[in-house]
Amino acid sequence: MAQKPSILAGTRDILPEVALRRKYIFSTIEKVFQKYGYSPIETPAMEKLSVLLGKYGEEGDKLIFKLLNSGDYLSKRGKRIVEAEDLEKGEKHLTPLLTEKGLRYDLTVPFARFVVMNQNELTFPFRRYQIQPVWRAERSQKGRYREFFQCDADVVGSDSLLFESEFLAIYDEVLSKLGLTSFTIQISNRKILNGFAEVIGQADKFMDICVAIDKLDKIGKDGVQNELANRGVPAESAEKLFELITVEGTNEEKIAFLESRFGETEVGMKGLQELNEVLNMYASFPTWKGEVSFSPTLARGLNYYTGTIFEVQSNEVKIGSIASGGRYDDLTGVFGREGLSGVGISFGADRINDVMAELSLIEALPSSSTQVLLINFGKEYLSQNLSIVNTLRSADISAELYADAAKLKKQFSYANKKKVHFTIMVGEEEATQGILQLKNMDTGEQKTLKEAELVAVLREGMKA
Amino acid sequence: MAQKPSILAGTRDILPEVALRRKYIFSTIEKVFQKYGYSPIETPAMEKLSVLLGKYGEEGDKLIFKLLNSGDYLSKRGKRIVEAEDLEKGEKHLTPLLTEKGLRYDLTVPFARFVVMNQNELTFPFRRYQIQPVWRAERSQKGRYREFFQCDADVVGSDSLLFESEFLAIYDEVLSKLGLTSFTIQISNRKILNGFAEVIGQADKFMDICVAIDKLDKIGKDGVQNELANRGVPAESAEKLFELITVEGTNEEKIAFLESRFGETEVGMKGLQELNEVLNMYASFPTWKGEVSFSPTLARGLNYYTGTIFEVQSNEVKIGSIASGGRYDDLTGVFGREGLSGVGISFGADRINDVMAELSLIEALPSSSTQVLLINFGKEYLSQNLSIVNTLRSADISAELYADAAKLKKQFSYANKKKVHFTIMVGEEEATQGILQLKNMDTGEQKTLKEAELVAVLREGMKA
Repeated sequence: MAQKPSILAGTRDILPEVALRRKYIFSTIEKVFQKYGYSPIETPAMEKLSVLLGKYGEEGDKLIFKLLNSGDYLSKRGKRIVEAEDLEKGEKHLTPLLTEKGLRYDLTVPFARFVVMNQNELTFPFRRYQIQPVWRAERSQKGRYREFFQCDADVVGSDSLLFESEFLAIYDEVLSKLGLTSFTIQISNRKILNGFAEVIGQADKFMDICVAIDKLDKIGKDGVQNELANRGVPAESAEKLFELITVEGTNEEKIAFLESRFGETEVGMKGLQELNEVLNMYASFPTWKGEVSFSPTLARGLNYYTGTIFEVQSNEVKIGSIASGGRYDDLTGVFGREGLSGVGISFGADRINDVMAELSLIEALPSSSTQVLLINFGKEYLSQNLSIVNTLRSADISAELYADAAKLKKQFSYANKKKVHFTIMVGEEEATQGILQLKNMDTGEQKTLKEAELVAVLREGMKA
Repeated sequence: MAQKPSILAGTRDILPEVALRRKYIFSTIEKVFQKYGYSPIETPAMEKLSVLLGKYGEEGDKLIFKLLNSGDYLSKRGKRIVEAEDLEKGEKHLTPLLTEKGLRYDLTVPFARFVVMNQNELTFPFRRYQIQPVWRAERSQKGRYREFFQCDADVVGSDSLLFESEFLAIYDEVLSKLGLTSFTIQISNRKILNGFAEVIGQADKFMDICVAIDKLDKIGKDGVQNELANRGVPAESAEKLFELITVEGTNEEKIAFLESRFGETEVGMKGLQELNEVLNMYASFPTWKGEVSFSPTLARGLNYYTGTIFEVQSNEVKIGSIASGGRYDDLTGVFGREGLSGVGISFGADRINDVMAELSLIEALPSSSTQVLLINFGKEYLSQNLSIVNTLRSADISAELYADAAKLKKQFSYANKKKVHFTIMVGEEEATQGILQLKNMDTGEQKTLKEAELVAVLREGMKA
């Protein structure tokens, strides 16, 4: 008996309308990346577990999908390698005997491996982008998928701050081109956070301070104060910290205020100076719809950032960060290549999609490959219909002829379901007179045309 | 100590130059698919093993990558599910206890599942294309990868032969747009093969005959005769068969000849009639560089084809088929939805890439995201340089400013390695006079220009 098929929890089929819109988002990002000199690379979906494990923390290791070894995996060269006692010892012991491959968990670790392995063939500073799926064995829940795309751009092998200013411009251009009109590109620098810790006399509590102030938006001042107290930061230092991180004004005013307080802390002054340089260079870039704002409370959880940090939020839809990034001094050290500084950014395509849906920007994107449907009135009109459909395609207008002379109702229902914008009818009268009927499916308007006029009229109509 | 990273056998990193060219091939295919009304879909990389197993034969089942169950996979709801005796029974017994997910092995089976599961949301006839990677645990060898992309377009839910004629046009347009100038689109029909078997009195040997004549190109007439004899086809029948399959002439002549021999075989006549209809409709389509040829020896190994079959070969590079396809009466029956006829085609992107490389067509494709590099002479010229680079990007010309004022030799070496076509220099003299030096890196030619002239000059230069 035939089986009723189903799909794995946490995975999804992507239907044409959504697939086309995703493609539009990815290709918008991609075109901007390319314009700024970033080239694509691809890494394999599977990596050796030795490459992946130990890079994402203990929790991350558990969430890596592991592939069962192929073939006769219980033996190796005729020798049994898995025994009953191995089974007894449980999963933690058994797993490395059964598997040596895992699925890509993010794009950063494979990129680091890529840079180290291909360093002789790459041109540094190496700018790359990568738009590929990653897999995480998360507990499945609504809106969280076990397979999703990441869109990253990074440059490695240079500490020039020019790249930071370009990334500000890239965030701005991509999101504006996607139709967002109000969003904030937050910027700060990990060294400024070091400065805070030093200035309040708590240099050894740097990571605790980062973790706490990163939560300010979520848990408020009281919450952060509690958190700081729990982590051993004295109330007096915490008060001093708040005075610093809650500074208001323009970016220049905030920087000037902190400069006045950072006198004794070298690392903090360096952070402010770097930030200042990034913002000064950025002033030469064309601006779109985003606002660049120095945000002293921005900390970014990830340990490996050491310089500039970025986070982008929509001002209209509260959904968390829709893009992020930062500079790291040492991406590839873990794979034996030290001293390669880099900076990178990442767009959260799923969240951007959600923001666009919320703002009704999604509807404006193409939802069907087919722009024009020719209604089929039967074989008598086939050659005329094929002539029209081929004329349209030669003009790069996507068109199809309904394949059978089905009932009109069925053909128009097909056009509507596919959200086709125009239909063309050639019946007996039209065929005799060498004309056609063009119907705008959105407005209902109908026109009688000669085939020779068609392309020009459609191009005009598609603009509207 | 830092580990030296490595990559799994049978997988590959794709570097920028190759990645850009792959993108070009995929996007050429994709644009044509869309123009003909095909919309993209995506299915997950992982499917339930129950969906995948039993669809690709016993050998195929072994080549499916299987994912180890997550978490405490030895137990289920606190109950131990894998015991020492399960281990004793060997892989075949143990594997289903350890895994229930597999990686996509092709795009056809997931598509069949997709159609059945989403049938209420799809508009039939449903045209879709899908360009996604698949994974096969093949023994690794040079040029054979365990991860590779498939590019498929299918339409399901119609038996109209219009789709076949369109697919001929799609093959022709895609391959011609990729620069191929001499290739043959072979077409036949499984029913014609049925006709051969009937006419030579060997209807029950249909599959044997298909398998044997499919090898004619490889093993020659003697080889096929041996193969037929081994499979129990009498020499007299084989002789008769050869007379039929070696018919020469134009497509019309071959069809007419076979019609004269197929008098008594209904299915064979039906095949010829279908073929004739496809070719007649195709005559209304614009033609590019390919030749469409009725090939009576074409059989295609896959069991599920029931009507038209296609196979495309380069006439210049002997590498096997670069594209293929056919009609199947029942794609989704295995998942409980019967009677959905469909027809589909597939492009072999890796082989097309190889043909293009052999014909030196690859070199003409874009190999770098960066078209123009601005040489960096130091911070004094930064604002002028940024103004130029932003002018170029605003005109959709991909450009970058070298990030540091490194030695000229280093900067030009970077330009050469990245295969950048133009460099721009603004030094002291140029800055004072408000001019720039534009150098064509391919010809060595150098011009002095005003910034305002730059975009027009580059657009002209890039055309050449």
